[in-house]
Amino acid sequence: MVNRVDRDTTLCISLAARPSNHGVRFHNWLYAELGLNFLYKAVAPADITAAVAGIRGLNIRGAGVSMPYKSDVIPLIDALDPSAERIRSVNTIVNNDGHLTGYNTDYTAVYLLLEKHNVDPALPVAIKGSGGMANAVAAALADFGLHGTVVARNHETGAALASRYNWDYSSTVPETARLLVNVTPLGMNGPDADVVSFSEDEVSRADVVFDCVAFPIETPLIKLARSMGKATIDGGEVAALQAAEQFHLYTGVRPTEEQIIAAEEFSK
Amino acid sequence: MVNRVDRDTTLCISLAARPSNHGVRFHNWLYAELGLNFLYKAVAPADITAAVAGIRGLNIRGAGVSMPYKSDVIPLIDALDPSAERIRSVNTIVNNDGHLTGYNTDYTAVYLLLEKHNVDPALPVAIKGSGGMANAVAAALADFGLHGTVVARNHETGAALASRYNWDYSSTVPETARLLVNVTPLGMNGPDADVVSFSEDEVSRADVVFDCVAFPIETPLIKLARSMGKATIDGGEVAALQAAEQFHLYTGVRPTEEQIIAAEEFSK
Repeated sequence: MVNRVDRDTTLCISLAARPSNHGVRFHNWLYAELGLNFLYKAVAPADITAAVAGIRGLNIRGAGVSMPYKSDVIPLIDALDPSAERIRSVNTIVNNDGHLTGYNTDYTAVYLLLEKHNVDPALPVAIKGSGGMANAVAAALADFGLHGTVVARNHETGAALASRYNWDYSSTVPETARLLVNVTPLGMNGPDADVVSFSEDEVSRADVVFDCVAFPIETPLIKLARSMGKATIDGGEVAALQAAEQFHLYTGVRPTEEQIIAAEEFSK
Repeated sequence: MVNRVDRDTTLCISLAARPSNHGVRFHNWLYAELGLNFLYKAVAPADITAAVAGIRGLNIRGAGVSMPYKSDVIPLIDALDPSAERIRSVNTIVNNDGHLTGYNTDYTAVYLLLEKHNVDPALPVAIKGSGGMANAVAAALADFGLHGTVVARNHETGAALASRYNWDYSSTVPETARLLVNVTPLGMNGPDADVVSFSEDEVSRADVVFDCVAFPIETPLIKLARSMGKATIDGGEVAALQAAEQFHLYTGVRPTEEQIIAAEEFSK
Protein backbone atom coordinates (compact mmCIF):
# COMPACT_ATOMS: atom_id res chain seq x y z
CA MET A 1 0.00 0.00 0.00
CA VAL A 2 1.23 3.44 -0.94
CA ASN A 3 1.37 6.12 1.73
CA ARG A 4 -1.13 8.82 1.02
CA VAL A 5 1.13 11.84 1.06
CA ASP A 6 0.50 14.35 -1.74
CA ARG A 7 1.54 17.89 -2.58
CA ASP A 8 -1.02 19.30 -0.12
CA THR A 9 0.05 17.16 2.84
CA THR A 10 1.04 19.26 5.86
CA LEU A 11 4.31 18.17 7.39
CA CYS A 12 5.06 18.14 11.13
CA ILE A 13 8.32 16.92 12.61
CA SER A 14 10.07 16.24 15.88
CA LEU A 15 13.60 17.33 16.67
CA ALA A 16 15.53 15.10 19.04
CA ALA A 17 19.10 13.92 19.31
CA ARG A 18 17.78 10.37 19.61
CA PRO A 19 14.26 10.26 18.14
CA SER A 20 11.81 7.67 19.41
CA ASN A 21 9.00 6.18 17.37
CA HIS A 22 6.35 7.24 19.90
CA GLY A 23 5.46 10.66 18.46
CA VAL A 24 5.60 9.35 14.89
CA ARG A 25 3.16 6.59 15.67
CA PHE A 26 0.89 8.69 17.91
CA HIS A 27 0.45 11.59 15.49
CA ASN A 28 0.27 9.57 12.27
CA TRP A 29 -2.28 7.20 13.81
CA LEU A 30 -4.52 10.14 14.77
CA TYR A 31 -4.05 11.82 11.36
CA ALA A 32 -5.29 8.63 9.70
CA GLU A 33 -8.08 8.11 12.26
CA LEU A 34 -9.33 11.69 11.82
CA GLY A 35 -8.81 11.84 8.05
CA LEU A 36 -6.34 14.73 8.24
CA ASN A 37 -3.88 15.24 5.38
CA PHE A 38 -0.92 15.57 7.72
CA LEU A 39 2.30 13.65 8.13
CA TYR A 40 4.65 13.44 11.12
CA LYS A 41 8.33 12.61 10.78
CA ALA A 42 10.95 12.27 13.52
CA VAL A 43 14.24 14.00 12.70
CA ALA A 44 17.65 13.92 14.37
CA PRO A 45 18.78 17.36 13.21
CA ALA A 46 22.29 17.84 11.87
CA ASP A 47 22.30 21.43 13.10
CA ILE A 48 19.56 23.00 15.21
CA THR A 49 19.89 26.49 13.67
CA ALA A 50 19.59 25.11 10.14
CA ALA A 51 16.80 22.82 11.28
CA VAL A 52 14.72 25.75 12.58
CA ALA A 53 15.48 27.66 9.36
CA GLY A 54 14.13 24.58 7.58
CA ILE A 55 10.86 24.72 9.55
CA ARG A 56 10.33 28.20 8.10
CA GLY A 57 11.80 27.56 4.65
CA LEU A 58 9.95 24.30 4.04
CA ASN A 59 6.61 25.42 5.55
CA ILE A 60 6.69 22.76 8.23
CA ARG A 61 3.61 23.35 10.38
CA GLY A 62 4.94 22.20 13.71
CA ALA A 63 7.89 20.64 15.47
CA GLY A 64 8.16 18.71 18.70
CA VAL A 65 11.39 19.62 20.50
CA SER A 66 13.20 17.15 22.76
CA MET A 67 16.52 16.98 24.55
CA PRO A 68 18.93 18.69 24.14
CA TYR A 69 17.22 21.44 22.13
CA LYS A 70 14.49 22.74 24.47
CA SER A 71 16.44 25.87 25.41
CA ASP A 72 18.61 26.10 22.27
CA VAL A 73 15.62 26.88 20.06
CA ILE A 74 14.49 29.93 22.08
CA PRO A 75 16.76 32.49 20.35
CA LEU A 76 15.86 30.95 16.96
CA ILE A 77 12.09 31.48 17.12
CA ASP A 78 9.87 34.55 17.14
CA ALA A 79 7.68 34.30 20.23
CA LEU A 80 7.09 32.27 23.38
CA ASP A 81 3.68 31.22 24.63
CA PRO A 82 3.33 31.77 28.43
CA SER A 83 3.66 27.99 28.93
CA ALA A 84 7.23 28.13 27.55
CA GLU A 85 8.10 31.66 28.67
CA ARG A 86 7.43 30.66 32.28
CA ILE A 87 10.13 27.97 32.28
CA ARG A 88 12.32 29.07 29.34
CA SER A 89 11.84 25.64 27.78
CA VAL A 90 10.13 24.83 24.48
CA ASN A 91 8.86 21.38 23.57
CA THR A 92 6.58 22.47 20.70
CA ILE A 93 7.04 24.98 17.87
CA VAL A 94 4.07 26.14 15.80
CA ASN A 95 4.66 27.83 12.44
CA ASN A 96 2.03 30.37 11.37
CA ASP A 97 3.12 31.63 7.94
CA GLY A 98 6.77 31.79 8.97
CA HIS A 99 6.14 33.16 12.46
CA LEU A 100 7.37 30.57 14.97
CA THR A 101 5.90 30.38 18.48
CA GLY A 102 7.27 28.12 21.21
CA TYR A 103 4.99 26.27 23.65
CA ASN A 104 5.55 23.83 26.47
CA THR A 105 2.81 21.23 26.40
CA ASP A 106 4.43 19.26 29.26
CA TYR A 107 3.66 22.24 31.49
CA THR A 108 0.14 22.48 30.07
CA ALA A 109 -0.52 18.75 30.41
CA VAL A 110 0.58 18.62 34.07
CA TYR A 111 -1.58 21.63 34.90
CA LEU A 112 -4.61 20.10 33.17
CA LEU A 113 -4.10 16.74 34.91
CA LEU A 114 -4.06 18.43 38.35
CA GLU A 115 -7.41 19.97 37.41
CA LYS A 116 -8.80 16.74 35.99
CA HIS A 117 -7.88 14.72 39.08
CA ASN A 118 -9.27 17.43 41.39
CA VAL A 119 -5.99 17.71 43.27
CA ASP A 120 -6.36 19.87 46.38
CA PRO A 121 -3.96 22.86 46.09
CA ALA A 122 -3.50 22.76 49.87
CA LEU A 123 -1.68 19.39 49.80
CA PRO A 124 2.01 19.75 50.70
CA VAL A 125 4.12 18.52 47.75
CA ALA A 126 7.38 16.62 47.56
CA ILE A 127 8.81 16.57 44.03
CA LYS A 128 11.83 14.40 43.20
CA GLY A 129 14.08 15.61 40.39
CA SER A 130 15.61 18.87 39.22
CA GLY A 131 16.14 18.45 35.46
CA GLY A 132 14.32 20.05 32.54
CA MET A 133 11.08 18.07 32.95
CA ALA A 134 11.10 18.69 36.74
CA ASN A 135 11.30 22.39 35.93
CA ALA A 136 8.15 22.19 33.77
CA VAL A 137 6.31 20.06 36.35
CA ALA A 138 7.24 22.29 39.31
CA ALA A 139 6.08 25.38 37.42
CA ALA A 140 2.71 23.77 36.72
CA LEU A 141 2.36 22.63 40.36
CA ALA A 142 3.24 26.13 41.63
CA ASP A 143 0.90 27.83 39.16
CA PHE A 144 -1.84 25.47 40.31
CA GLY A 145 -1.32 26.93 43.79
CA LEU A 146 0.64 24.07 45.35
CA HIS A 147 3.58 24.52 47.72
CA GLY A 148 6.20 22.10 48.91
CA THR A 149 9.70 20.74 48.77
CA VAL A 150 12.10 19.88 45.98
CA VAL A 151 13.95 16.68 46.80
CA ALA A 152 17.08 16.21 44.70
CA ARG A 153 20.49 14.65 45.00
CA ASN A 154 21.97 17.57 43.09
CA HIS A 155 21.94 20.34 45.70
CA GLU A 156 22.71 23.11 43.22
CA THR A 157 19.94 22.45 40.68
CA GLY A 158 17.51 21.31 43.38
CA ALA A 159 17.93 24.45 45.49
CA ALA A 160 17.74 26.66 42.38
CA LEU A 161 14.48 25.03 41.31
CA ALA A 162 12.99 25.36 44.82
CA SER A 163 13.96 29.02 45.16
CA ARG A 164 12.24 29.84 41.85
CA TYR A 165 8.84 29.15 43.50
CA ASN A 166 9.75 29.99 47.11
CA TRP A 167 9.62 26.28 47.87
CA ASP A 168 11.92 24.39 50.22
CA TYR A 169 14.83 22.26 49.18
CA SER A 170 15.72 19.05 51.00
CA SER A 171 17.74 15.92 50.34
CA THR A 172 14.99 13.83 52.02
CA VAL A 173 11.22 13.67 51.71
CA PRO A 174 9.49 15.63 54.52
CA GLU A 175 7.01 13.64 56.60
CA THR A 176 4.38 16.30 55.90
CA ALA A 177 4.29 15.56 52.12
CA ARG A 178 0.82 14.48 50.90
CA LEU A 179 1.34 14.80 47.12
CA LEU A 180 4.39 12.86 45.89
CA VAL A 181 5.70 13.65 42.42
CA ASN A 182 8.49 11.69 40.71
CA VAL A 183 10.32 13.38 37.83
CA THR A 184 13.50 11.27 38.00
CA PRO A 185 14.30 8.21 35.85
CA LEU A 186 13.72 5.94 38.88
CA GLY A 187 11.33 3.18 37.79
CA MET A 188 11.90 3.86 34.08
CA ASN A 189 12.84 1.05 31.69
CA GLY A 190 16.60 0.74 31.97
CA PRO A 191 19.05 0.38 34.85
CA ASP A 192 16.62 1.84 37.44
CA ALA A 193 13.52 -0.07 36.31
CA ASP A 194 13.05 -1.85 39.65
CA VAL A 195 13.64 1.18 41.87
CA VAL A 196 10.61 2.54 43.76
CA SER A 197 11.12 6.31 43.74
CA PHE A 198 9.36 6.93 47.11
CA SER A 199 9.44 4.64 50.16
CA GLU A 200 6.49 2.61 51.40
CA ASP A 201 6.26 4.90 54.45
CA GLU A 202 6.22 8.00 52.27
CA VAL A 203 3.53 6.55 50.01
CA SER A 204 1.46 5.43 52.99
CA ARG A 205 1.35 9.03 54.27
CA ALA A 206 0.38 10.47 50.83
CA ASP A 207 -3.05 11.25 49.39
CA VAL A 208 -1.96 11.44 45.73
CA VAL A 209 1.02 9.88 43.92
CA PHE A 210 2.09 11.35 40.58
CA ASP A 211 4.77 9.60 38.49
CA CYS A 212 5.99 11.32 35.31
CA VAL A 213 7.73 8.17 34.04
CA ALA A 214 5.80 6.97 30.95
CA PHE A 215 7.84 3.88 30.00
CA PRO A 216 6.45 1.78 31.56
CA ILE A 217 3.19 3.38 32.63
CA GLU A 218 2.90 0.96 35.55
CA THR A 219 6.10 1.88 37.39
CA PRO A 220 6.97 0.27 40.75
CA LEU A 221 5.82 3.53 42.39
CA ILE A 222 2.44 3.52 40.64
CA LYS A 223 1.96 -0.18 41.46
CA LEU A 224 2.79 0.41 45.11
CA ALA A 225 0.48 3.44 45.37
CA ARG A 226 -2.41 1.60 43.72
CA SER A 227 -1.88 -1.44 45.94
CA MET A 228 -2.29 0.92 48.91
CA GLY A 229 -5.45 2.47 47.46
CA LYS A 230 -3.92 5.87 46.76
CA ALA A 231 -5.06 8.23 44.01
CA THR A 232 -2.52 8.19 41.17
CA ILE A 233 -1.59 10.19 38.10
CA ASP A 234 0.72 8.27 35.77
CA GLY A 235 3.28 9.22 33.13
CA GLY A 236 1.14 7.75 30.38
CA GLU A 237 -1.47 10.42 31.11
CA VAL A 238 1.18 13.15 30.88
CA ALA A 239 2.62 11.77 27.64
CA ALA A 240 -0.80 11.35 26.02
CA LEU A 241 -2.15 14.73 27.11
CA GLN A 242 0.96 16.68 26.11
CA ALA A 243 0.90 14.96 22.71
CA ALA A 244 -2.83 15.71 22.36
CA GLU A 245 -2.13 19.38 23.15
CA GLN A 246 0.60 19.37 20.47
CA PHE A 247 -1.82 17.69 18.09
CA HIS A 248 -4.39 20.41 18.71
CA LEU A 249 -1.83 23.18 18.22
CA TYR A 250 -0.74 21.70 14.88
CA THR A 251 -4.09 20.70 13.41
CA GLY A 252 -6.70 22.78 15.24
CA VAL A 253 -8.50 19.49 15.93
CA ARG A 254 -8.97 18.14 19.45
CA PRO A 255 -9.15 14.33 19.53
CA THR A 256 -11.58 12.65 21.94
CA GLU A 257 -10.23 10.96 25.05
CA GLU A 258 -10.99 7.58 23.48
CA GLN A 259 -8.99 8.50 20.38
CA ILE A 260 -6.05 9.64 22.50
CA ILE A 261 -6.10 6.39 24.46
CA ALA A 262 -6.25 4.35 21.25
CA ALA A 263 -3.39 6.37 19.69
CA GLU A 264 -1.33 5.95 22.85
CA GLU A 265 -2.07 2.21 22.86
CA PHE A 266 -0.94 1.98 19.22
CA SER A 267 2.23 3.97 19.97
CA LYS A 268 3.53 1.86 22.84
CA MET B 1 -4.63 2.69 7.06
CA VAL B 2 -1.68 4.30 8.79
CA ASN B 3 1.20 5.50 6.67
CA ARG B 4 4.32 3.57 7.45
CA VAL B 5 6.67 6.41 8.27
CA ASP B 6 8.85 5.88 11.35
CA ARG B 7 11.86 7.55 12.95
CA ASP B 8 14.21 5.86 10.46
CA THR B 9 12.31 6.92 7.32
CA THR B 10 14.50 8.87 4.90
CA LEU B 11 12.84 12.05 3.68
CA CYS B 12 13.15 13.43 0.14
CA ILE B 13 11.36 16.54 -1.05
CA SER B 14 10.72 18.66 -4.10
CA LEU B 15 10.99 22.44 -4.17
CA ALA B 16 8.70 24.22 -6.61
CA ALA B 17 6.69 27.43 -6.56
CA ARG B 18 3.70 25.40 -7.70
CA PRO B 19 4.26 21.74 -6.78
CA SER B 20 2.57 19.05 -8.84
CA ASN B 21 1.57 15.64 -7.51
CA HIS B 22 3.59 13.80 -10.16
CA GLY B 23 6.88 13.44 -8.27
CA VAL B 24 5.12 12.66 -5.00
CA ARG B 25 3.18 9.83 -6.60
CA PHE B 26 6.08 8.54 -8.74
CA HIS B 27 8.63 8.34 -5.94
CA ASN B 28 6.30 7.12 -3.19
CA TRP B 29 4.87 4.43 -5.46
CA LEU B 30 8.38 3.12 -6.17
CA TYR B 31 9.41 3.32 -2.50
CA ALA B 32 6.44 1.12 -1.64
CA GLU B 33 7.01 -1.20 -4.60
CA LEU B 34 10.69 -1.66 -3.72
CA GLY B 35 10.17 -1.82 0.05
CA LEU B 36 12.35 1.23 0.74
CA ASN B 37 11.81 3.17 3.96
CA PHE B 38 11.72 6.52 2.15
CA LEU B 39 9.12 9.23 1.87
CA TYR B 40 8.74 11.98 -0.74
CA LYS B 41 6.97 15.26 -0.04
CA ALA B 42 6.38 18.19 -2.40
CA VAL B 43 7.09 21.57 -0.83
CA ALA B 44 6.39 25.14 -1.98
CA PRO B 45 9.24 26.78 -0.08
CA ALA B 46 8.63 30.01 1.81
CA ASP B 47 12.25 31.04 1.26
CA ILE B 48 14.74 29.16 -0.90
CA THR B 49 17.78 29.98 1.27
CA ALA B 50 16.04 28.74 4.41
CA ALA B 51 14.71 25.75 2.48
CA VAL B 52 18.22 24.67 1.45
CA ALA B 53 19.41 25.22 5.03
CA GLY B 54 16.56 22.92 6.02
CA ILE B 55 17.79 20.17 3.68
CA ARG B 56 21.06 20.18 5.63
CA GLY B 57 19.57 20.84 9.08
CA LEU B 58 16.84 18.22 8.83
CA ASN B 59 18.95 15.55 7.10
CA ILE B 60 16.76 15.50 4.01
CA ARG B 61 18.40 13.07 1.58
CA GLY B 62 17.42 14.70 -1.68
CA ALA B 63 15.43 17.49 -3.25
CA GLY B 64 13.95 17.90 -6.70
CA VAL B 65 14.26 21.52 -7.82
CA SER B 66 11.77 23.13 -10.19
CA MET B 67 11.02 26.60 -11.48
CA PRO B 68 11.98 29.22 -10.43
CA TYR B 69 14.77 27.84 -8.23
CA LYS B 70 17.01 25.94 -10.67
CA SER B 71 19.66 28.67 -10.75
CA ASP B 72 18.92 30.22 -7.35
CA VAL B 73 20.11 27.14 -5.49
CA ILE B 74 23.59 27.10 -7.08
CA PRO B 75 25.25 29.53 -4.61
CA LEU B 76 23.53 27.72 -1.73
CA ILE B 77 25.00 24.24 -2.33
CA ASP B 78 28.51 22.80 -2.14
CA ALA B 79 29.23 21.22 -5.51
CA LEU B 80 27.85 20.78 -9.03
CA ASP B 81 27.86 17.52 -10.93
CA PRO B 82 28.99 18.01 -14.56
CA SER B 83 25.35 17.57 -15.70
CA ALA B 84 24.41 20.75 -13.81
CA GLU B 85 27.73 22.59 -14.15
CA ARG B 86 27.40 22.39 -17.94
CA ILE B 87 24.16 24.37 -18.01
CA ARG B 88 24.29 26.15 -14.62
CA SER B 89 20.91 24.66 -13.78
CA VAL B 90 20.11 22.25 -10.95
CA ASN B 91 17.00 20.06 -10.85
CA THR B 92 18.23 17.61 -8.21
CA ILE B 93 20.13 18.09 -4.94
CA VAL B 94 21.70 15.13 -3.16
CA ASN B 95 22.71 15.45 0.51
CA ASN B 96 25.65 13.32 1.60
CA ASP B 97 26.12 14.02 5.34
CA GLY B 98 25.50 17.73 4.88
CA HIS B 99 27.47 18.07 1.63
CA LEU B 100 25.00 19.12 -1.09
CA THR B 101 25.66 18.32 -4.75
CA GLY B 102 23.53 19.61 -7.62
CA TYR B 103 22.66 17.49 -10.65
CA ASN B 104 20.57 17.99 -13.74
CA THR B 105 18.75 14.79 -14.54
CA ASP B 106 16.83 16.40 -17.43
CA TYR B 107 20.17 16.75 -19.22
CA THR B 108 21.09 13.18 -18.31
CA ALA B 109 17.72 11.77 -19.38
CA VAL B 110 17.80 13.47 -22.81
CA TYR B 111 21.33 12.23 -23.44
CA LEU B 112 20.40 8.66 -22.45
CA LEU B 113 17.27 8.73 -24.65
CA LEU B 114 19.31 9.77 -27.69
CA GLU B 115 21.53 6.74 -27.03
CA LYS B 116 18.58 4.41 -26.37
CA HIS B 117 16.81 5.42 -29.61
CA ASN B 118 20.04 5.12 -31.61
CA VAL B 119 19.75 8.67 -32.90
CA ASP B 120 22.31 9.38 -35.63
CA PRO B 121 24.52 12.30 -34.46
CA ALA B 122 24.79 13.42 -38.09
CA LEU B 123 21.09 14.38 -38.31
CA PRO B 124 20.64 18.16 -38.59
CA VAL B 125 18.54 19.34 -35.61
CA ALA B 126 15.89 22.01 -35.27
CA ILE B 127 15.04 22.71 -31.65
CA LYS B 128 12.09 24.96 -30.76
CA GLY B 129 12.33 26.87 -27.49
CA SER B 130 14.92 28.85 -25.59
CA GLY B 131 13.91 28.57 -21.91
CA GLY B 132 15.51 26.65 -19.07
CA MET B 133 14.48 23.19 -20.27
CA ALA B 134 15.58 24.04 -23.85
CA ASN B 135 18.95 24.92 -22.40
CA ALA B 136 19.29 21.46 -20.80
CA VAL B 137 18.03 19.70 -23.95
CA ALA B 138 20.31 21.64 -26.31
CA ALA B 139 23.33 20.89 -24.12
CA ALA B 140 22.55 17.16 -24.20
CA LEU B 141 22.00 17.23 -27.98
CA ALA B 142 25.29 19.11 -28.50
CA ASP B 143 27.21 16.80 -26.16
CA PHE B 144 25.78 13.85 -28.09
CA GLY B 145 27.49 15.31 -31.18
CA LEU B 146 24.45 16.83 -32.87
CA HIS B 147 24.44 20.19 -34.66
CA GLY B 148 21.61 22.36 -35.81
CA THR B 149 19.40 25.38 -35.39
CA VAL B 150 17.63 26.97 -32.46
CA VAL B 151 14.20 28.17 -33.56
CA ALA B 152 12.69 30.66 -31.12
CA ARG B 153 10.39 33.65 -31.16
CA ASN B 154 12.57 35.37 -28.58
CA HIS B 155 15.56 36.45 -30.67
CA GLU B 156 17.71 37.35 -27.69
CA THR B 157 17.45 34.09 -25.75
CA GLY B 158 17.30 32.01 -28.95
CA ALA B 159 20.50 33.51 -30.40
CA ALA B 160 22.26 33.24 -27.02
CA LEU B 161 21.37 29.56 -26.73
CA ALA B 162 22.51 28.86 -30.31
CA SER B 163 25.82 30.66 -29.87
CA ARG B 164 26.62 28.60 -26.77
CA TYR B 165 27.03 25.50 -28.98
CA ASN B 166 28.07 27.22 -32.23
CA TRP B 167 24.65 26.39 -33.60
CA ASP B 168 22.53 28.59 -35.87
CA TYR B 169 19.64 30.72 -34.78
CA SER B 170 16.56 31.17 -36.96
CA SER B 171 12.99 32.29 -36.55
CA THR B 172 11.87 29.50 -38.94
CA VAL B 173 12.63 25.79 -39.21
CA PRO B 174 15.30 25.08 -41.88
CA GLU B 175 14.27 22.64 -44.61
CA THR B 176 17.39 20.60 -43.86
CA ALA B 177 16.22 19.65 -40.34
CA ARG B 178 15.90 15.87 -39.84
CA LEU B 179 15.60 15.74 -36.04
CA LEU B 180 12.81 17.99 -34.71
CA VAL B 181 12.81 18.79 -31.02
CA ASN B 182 10.01 20.69 -29.28
CA VAL B 183 10.80 22.30 -25.93
CA THR B 184 7.99 24.90 -25.99
CA PRO B 185 4.58 24.58 -24.28
CA LEU B 186 2.93 24.07 -27.71
CA GLY B 187 0.75 20.95 -27.49
CA MET B 188 0.78 20.98 -23.68
CA ASN B 189 -2.46 20.80 -21.68
CA GLY B 190 -3.67 24.39 -21.46
CA PRO B 191 -4.26 27.16 -23.96
CA ASP B 192 -1.92 25.65 -26.59
CA ALA B 193 -3.12 22.05 -26.27
CA ASP B 194 -4.27 21.84 -29.89
CA VAL B 195 -1.21 23.49 -31.45
CA VAL B 196 1.10 21.24 -33.49
CA SER B 197 4.58 22.56 -32.74
CA PHE B 198 6.03 21.66 -36.19
CA SER B 199 4.19 21.76 -39.53
CA GLU B 200 3.17 18.71 -41.52
CA ASP B 201 5.80 19.55 -44.13
CA GLU B 202 8.50 19.82 -41.48
CA VAL B 203 7.51 16.51 -39.93
CA SER B 204 7.34 14.81 -43.32
CA ARG B 205 10.98 15.74 -43.97
CA ALA B 206 12.17 14.51 -40.53
CA ASP B 207 13.60 11.14 -39.50
CA VAL B 208 13.03 11.57 -35.75
CA VAL B 209 10.55 13.74 -33.83
CA PHE B 210 11.27 14.48 -30.16
CA ASP B 211 8.65 16.26 -28.02
CA CYS B 212 9.58 17.24 -24.48
CA VAL B 213 5.96 17.94 -23.53
CA ALA B 214 4.89 15.27 -21.02
CA PHE B 215 1.29 16.34 -20.30
CA PRO B 216 -0.18 14.82 -22.38
CA ILE B 217 2.32 12.27 -23.62
CA GLU B 218 0.44 12.00 -26.93
CA THR B 219 0.77 15.60 -28.07
CA PRO B 220 -0.57 16.70 -31.46
CA LEU B 221 3.06 16.62 -32.71
CA ILE B 222 3.68 13.06 -31.49
CA LYS B 223 0.34 11.92 -32.99
CA LEU B 224 1.18 13.51 -36.33
CA ALA B 225 4.69 12.03 -36.40
CA ARG B 226 3.43 8.54 -35.51
CA SER B 227 0.69 8.77 -38.13
CA MET B 228 3.43 9.46 -40.68
CA GLY B 229 5.53 6.51 -39.46
CA LYS B 230 8.30 8.63 -37.98
CA ALA B 231 10.50 7.55 -35.09
CA THR B 232 9.46 9.44 -31.96
CA ILE B 233 10.75 10.23 -28.49
CA ASP B 234 8.04 11.59 -26.21
CA GLY B 235 7.98 13.75 -23.11
CA GLY B 236 6.75 10.87 -21.00
CA GLU B 237 10.06 9.12 -21.63
CA VAL B 238 11.98 12.22 -20.55
CA ALA B 239 9.87 12.68 -17.42
CA ALA B 240 10.12 9.03 -16.42
CA LEU B 241 13.83 8.70 -17.09
CA GLN B 242 14.79 11.91 -15.31
CA ALA B 243 12.70 10.84 -12.32
CA ALA B 244 14.32 7.39 -12.38
CA GLU B 245 17.76 9.02 -12.41
CA GLN B 246 16.71 11.13 -9.41
CA PHE B 247 15.39 8.02 -7.72
CA HIS B 248 18.73 6.27 -8.21
CA LEU B 249 20.67 9.27 -6.88
CA TYR B 250 18.53 9.37 -3.72
CA THR B 251 18.22 5.66 -2.95
CA GLY B 252 21.12 3.96 -4.74
CA VAL B 253 18.51 1.63 -6.25
CA ARG B 254 17.81 1.53 -9.99
CA PRO B 255 14.21 0.52 -10.75
CA THR B 256 13.55 -1.75 -13.74
CA GLU B 257 12.01 -0.28 -16.87
CA GLU B 258 8.74 -2.06 -16.05
CA GLN B 259 8.70 -0.50 -12.59
CA ILE B 260 9.35 2.95 -14.02
CA ILE B 261 6.51 2.52 -16.52
CA ALA B 262 4.15 1.33 -13.77
CA ALA B 263 5.16 4.23 -11.49
CA GLU B 264 4.65 6.68 -14.36
CA GLU B 265 1.26 5.14 -15.12
CA PHE B 266 0.29 5.52 -11.45
CA SER B 267 1.49 9.13 -11.38
CA LYS B 268 -0.49 10.42 -14.36
